[in-house]
Amino acid sequence: VANVLTSAIVANDTIKADVDRVLSDFCDRQLSLAAMQGIYYTDFWQSIRNLLEAGGKRMRPYLCVLAYRMYGGQNYEGILSVAAAQELLHLSMLIHDDIIDRDDVRYGVPNISGQYMAVYGGRASLADVKHYALSAALLAGDAVLSSAYEIILSGSLQDAEKIQAMRLIADSVQAVVGGELADTESVMLPVTSSDPVGVATYKTAMYSFVGPLLSGAGLAHAPELDLEQLRAYGLSLGVAFQLADDLLGIFGDEEVTGKSVISDIEEGKRTYLLQQAYVLCNETQRAELDMLVGHSDITTEDALRVRNLITNCGARDRTVECISDHAAQASQALQQLSTPESVREPLQRLIAAATKRNK
Amino acid sequence: VANVLTSAIVANDTIKADVDRVLSDFCDRQLSLAAMQGIYYTDFWQSIRNLLEAGGKRMRPYLCVLAYRMYGGQNYEGILSVAAAQELLHLSMLIHDDIIDRDDVRYGVPNISGQYMAVYGGRASLADVKHYALSAALLAGDAVLSSAYEIILSGSLQDAEKIQAMRLIADSVQAVVGGELADTESVMLPVTSSDPVGVATYKTAMYSFVGPLLSGAGLAHAPELDLEQLRAYGLSLGVAFQLADDLLGIFGDEEVTGKSVISDIEEGKRTYLLQQAYVLCNETQRAELDMLVGHSDITTEDALRVRNLITNCGARDRTVECISDHAAQASQALQQLSTPESVREPLQRLIAAATKRNK
Repeated sequence: VANVLTSAIVANDTIKADVDRVLSDFCDRQLSLAAMQGIYYTDFWQSIRNLLEAGGKRMRPYLCVLAYRMYGGQNYEGILSVAAAQELLHLSMLIHDDIIDRDDVRYGVPNISGQYMAVYGGRASLADVKHYALSAALLAGDAVLSSAYEIILSGSLQDAEKIQAMRLIADSVQAVVGGELADTESVMLPVTSSDPVGVATYKTAMYSFVGPLLSGAGLAHAPELDLEQLRAYGLSLGVAFQLADDLLGIFGDEEVTGKSVISDIEEGKRTYLLQQAYVLCNETQRAELDMLVGHSDITTEDALRVRNLITNCGARDRTVECISDHAAQASQALQQLSTPESVREPLQRLIAAATKRNK
Repeated sequence: VANVLTSAIVANDTIKADVDRVLSDFCDRQLSLAAMQGIYYTDFWQSIRNLLEAGGKRMRPYLCVLAYRMYGGQNYEGILSVAAAQELLHLSMLIHDDIIDRDDVRYGVPNISGQYMAVYGGRASLADVKHYALSAALLAGDAVLSSAYEIILSGSLQDAEKIQAMRLIADSVQAVVGGELADTESVMLPVTSSDPVGVATYKTAMYSFVGPLLSGAGLAHAPELDLEQLRAYGLSLGVAFQLADDLLGIFGDEEVTGKSVISDIEEGKRTYLLQQAYVLCNETQRAELDMLVGHSDITTEDALRVRNLITNCGARDRTVECISDHAAQASQALQQLSTPESVREPLQRLIAAATKRNK
C-alpha cells in the first residue's frame, strides 16, 4: 500500500470532484446512522471522514471511471459508486496498514489512532490509551472495509452490475490481505529470500490497478480479451509503480516526495532495491548493509553510505531496468486492446507517469 | 460478542451440519485461491479454518434458517449461504475482539494470534513476534469479514436476494462496530455512566439476533409487520442473552460454563450487573468494589466478596428482573406475529433457553 505512489497520477479534476461528492454523501449518511447509536459513534465516523478528506489523489476511482468510459459505459452516476468503493477499500487497508506499521500519521495528519490518542489521552495509562486508540483504528478499518461493499449496494447500478462489482472487491481483498501478510512476514526472513515483485503484485497492483480497471471495463461490457489485457497492464503497471515508489523512498528528494529518505532504511523494508543490493554486493559490502539497514536512529551520513552501496553494486540500475521492463510489458498489453489508440491514450500516459516520477 | 452466550442454543443438528458443509466448501475454495499466492497464504487460511472448526454452535445460521422456514422459504441451499455469512461475520468480529481484549485463546484452542505466535516464535524478538502475530490476526479478521459478503455473492440466490441479504450484513457491521467501540470506551468511564443495555443491543443483539432473523424472514417474504416484531424480539432476546451471559460470568459454575468467574471482575467489565451494584450499594461497599474490581490477580476469596456485595445490594436480583423483563418483551413481540403459534414455537423455546441457562 504505497504512499508516494498515487501522487504521480492526478485524477481528472471533474472525476475527482464527483467521487468526492459521492464519498461525502456516503459519510453524511453514515454519520446520521451513527448518531442513533450515540455521540461517541458520530465522533468515530468523523475521524474516518477527517482522514478521507485529508488526502488521496483518488487514483483508483479515476482508473475505474476511465476504463468504464473507454468501453462506452453510459451510467456515470452508477459507476461513481463503484469508483468510490475502490477508494474506501484503499482507505480501510491504509488504516489497518498503519496499525501493522505502527504509524500515527497519514497524509501529514493524525490517522485514526493518532486522532484517538488525543481523544483518550489522560483517561487511562499511556499504554492503555495507545491500545484503545489502536482498537478504535482496528474498528474503523472494519467499518470502512464493509463500506466498500455498502456504497455499491446503495448505489444506482442494476443488481447484476452490483454483484459483478462486489465480486471484484472480494477478489481485491483476498489479494491485498495476502500481500500485506507476505510483506509482514518478509521482515522476519533474510533479505535475499524476500519476493518484492510478488508482494508488489498482491499488496499493490491487484487492488490498486487490476480491480479498478476490471470493474470499470467489465461493467461497460469490454470484450473478454480486453479484460485479459487490462489485467496484464494493471499488474505490470502496479509493479512498476511500487518499484518506482521504493526507489523514490531512498533516492527521492524529501522536499518533493514529502517522505523521509531514511525511514525505509531504518525499517529494513524488503524492497526490490534492497534485495538486489544484497544479491549484487560482495561480502564486505553485505556486512556493511547488515550494519546499517533495519536499525533505528541511523544518521543522514549512514543513509548516504547505503545509497552509495546500492548505486555502486548496480542495484539501482537494475531496479530502473526492472521498472522499464514492467512499463514495456504494460505498454505491450495496451497495444492488444481492441480500442482505437486515441481511446487508450490516457492509460499510455499513466505508464509514462510511472516511469518518469519525481514524487 | 459473548462467549458463553451461544452454548445455550444448540442449532438443529441437520442445519448445523449443512451450514458446516457450506463453510467447509468455502474454506476449500479460499485455500485453493490462496495457494496461487503462496504457501504462506494457505497456512493463513488454514489457521482461519482451524478456528472456525474449533467451536461455535452456529446459533446465528440457525436463526436465519429458522426464520426463513417460518415464512415458507423454499430455497434451502440458497439460504444456507446467507446463514453461513452470519457465522463468518461473527468469526471476523471474534477475531478482532480477541485483539482488542488481548486474548490468545478462543473455543479452548489458540486463536489466530495464538497460532501465529507458535509459527513466528524465534524469528524475531518476543515483542515483535507478538506484534506480527497480532498483525496476522488483524488481516484474518479482514479476510473473514469480506468473506461474509463473498459467500453470499458466490451462493445460489437470485441477484436481488443477494443484495437484500448483503444490505443486512452491512447494517450488522455498522451496529457491531459501534457496540465494540462503546464497550472499549466504557472501561475508561466511571461504572455508573456506562450503558450496558445499549452495548448489549449494538454489540450483541443486532448482529447475532436481528440480522440473522431479518435476513431469513425477509428473503422468505415475511409481511412488513412481522419483520418489525422479529426485530423487537431479536433486540429483547439479545439483551436478555447478554445479561444472562454476564450473570453466568460471575455466578456461573466454572465447570459447566468453562469460563473463569474471576476474569470479568479482574477486567472490570462494564456489565449491567456491575453497573447496578455501583448504583445500589452504599459508600463503604462502593469503596470495597473499587478496591476489588478491575485489578489483576485477585484471589478466589476476593471474587467471593464481590459476589456477596453484588448479591446483598440487590444488583443480582435486579439483573434477573431485567432479564425477565426483556424475555417478556421478546415473548410479547412473538405474539404479534402473523404465523400460527406452532410455527413460532421454536422462537418461544429460545426465550426459555435464554432465561434458564446454566451455561
